[in-house]
Amino acid sequence: MTLDDFRITSSKKFNLTDFDPGGKPLSQGDKAADEARLETLSAELDALQDIFYAEHRRKVLVVLQGMDTSGKDGTVRSVFRSVDPLGIRVVSFKAPTAEELARDYLWRVHAQVPRVGEIVLFNRSHYEDVLITRVHGWIAEAEWERRYKQIRAFESLLTDTGTTIVKCFLHISKDEQKARLEARIADPQKHWKFDTQDLAERKFWKEYEKAYEAAIAATATPDCPWYIVPSDSKTHRNLMVAEIITAVFRQLKPAYPPPKPELAKLRVE
Amino acid sequence: MTLDDFRITSSKKFNLTDFDPGGKPLSQGDKAADEARLETLSAELDALQDIFYAEHRRKVLVVLQGMDTSGKDGTVRSVFRSVDPLGIRVVSFKAPTAEELARDYLWRVHAQVPRVGEIVLFNRSHYEDVLITRVHGWIAEAEWERRYKQIRAFESLLTDTGTTIVKCFLHISKDEQKARLEARIADPQKHWKFDTQDLAERKFWKEYEKAYEAAIAATATPDCPWYIVPSDSKTHRNLMVAEIITAVFRQLKPAYPPPKPELAKLRVE
Repeated sequence: MTLDDFRITSSKKFNLTDFDPGGKPLSQGDKAADEARLETLSAELDALQDIFYAEHRRKVLVVLQGMDTSGKDGTVRSVFRSVDPLGIRVVSFKAPTAEELARDYLWRVHAQVPRVGEIVLFNRSHYEDVLITRVHGWIAEAEWERRYKQIRAFESLLTDTGTTIVKCFLHISKDEQKARLEARIADPQKHWKFDTQDLAERKFWKEYEKAYEAAIAATATPDCPWYIVPSDSKTHRNLMVAEIITAVFRQLKPAYPPPKPELAKLRVE
Repeated sequence: MTLDDFRITSSKKFNLTDFDPGGKPLSQGDKAADEARLETLSAELDALQDIFYAEHRRKVLVVLQGMDTSGKDGTVRSVFRSVDPLGIRVVSFKAPTAEELARDYLWRVHAQVPRVGEIVLFNRSHYEDVLITRVHGWIAEAEWERRYKQIRAFESLLTDTGTTIVKCFLHISKDEQKARLEARIADPQKHWKFDTQDLAERKFWKEYEKAYEAAIAATATPDCPWYIVPSDSKTHRNLMVAEIITAVFRQLKPAYPPPKPELAKLRVE
């Protein structure tokens, strides 16, 4: 299987249940081989990003979504840590503040989009506004349908104006979440990561799956695809996200700005 | 010599000319040894920052200043690239916009200070407002003296409220700048980094030295020290900044938040 099998570009025939969260479709064989491949990809990504930053012309936005404990933080750390801090920015969206709620839900998101030469990682995103809100019935069906349309229009604005958008759904099973929550409870050094609210949300697993499936189907387009990333294995998750992002940068073919012939005449005194 | 010899904490007896930009006071012997030491420090910094982020209580602000080509970008890349992108943010201050000029000069700076658990790197900073402005006579002596006082008060506010501030002056010689500017001219892939304005500023080398010396002396305090980093050697510069930052984090002794005993009762279903 290749990346193409996990890229969703339209609402046609998309069922989340077709994807196995425990699969390792891009694995090179074993963990050591996968980690070696991740190192290779990190070096390639670092080199491509360096030129992308110098090019100073286009933008890249990576959206990371997934159930609690699906590994959004871990992905940021493992896949993007070799990238020059000058050229990357992480935005973690939490529950909106009063100032943010006083505007439309895309206001705070628009304020954080990447500038030229920049990669921005959204750790959660505007998709929460069609997920948790839908699961808990805070918005009605007519409203979530309206929001899908608004999100498509918003993302089109970004892609029309030079932003490449990559959306990753980190796909874990309910059993794997159980194991990860239990691991957090068992390790006092991980207690700070444990939010008892996660247990409450876990009760809505099926509803979240349905809401994700609908949101992904409604907002997957050829220009703004979603990738379903089997994530029960952290090693595989990191490898696959690295493959996705590196492939995107390869396609962008970043280039240094043209040389300035007039510099040849300059003398430094 | 130790780090202490390069830490300025008061205006007493500070002369920039006492420091040799070509020195390698912290070198371990040769380049290979220095690079190995940098690797060790990077791993230590990464581990300390991980706990600092989890602690979610204090903030760290690193100010990088130096003449053009002194290596601010290179320092960000080489010293901080192993740090989790979730916990670090780089702010590059350029010429102020109309919106920024419509406020006081510290307004845009205050907006970018670190949040709890975060490291922020200022790539240039509010110090430009007592450097380029002074060198070109855009502000008079009474005004720069007033600004030193304002900057001391502003930085005190930050340290009083939980921010550790580390200010690094990347100290290069005029000859080294010449070599670096010529290298940029000679390499078409580096033309994008070349700003002909740098040549104009270079003519004011002595005035900049004087302005730096005065600004550092006026704003160095035990709580907000300046470090003079000999930077003609890039390897040494990276090593020394890494030593400074790692020492700061060691002193902070970050700790995981206390465990939550109530979690023991929880069952994940």
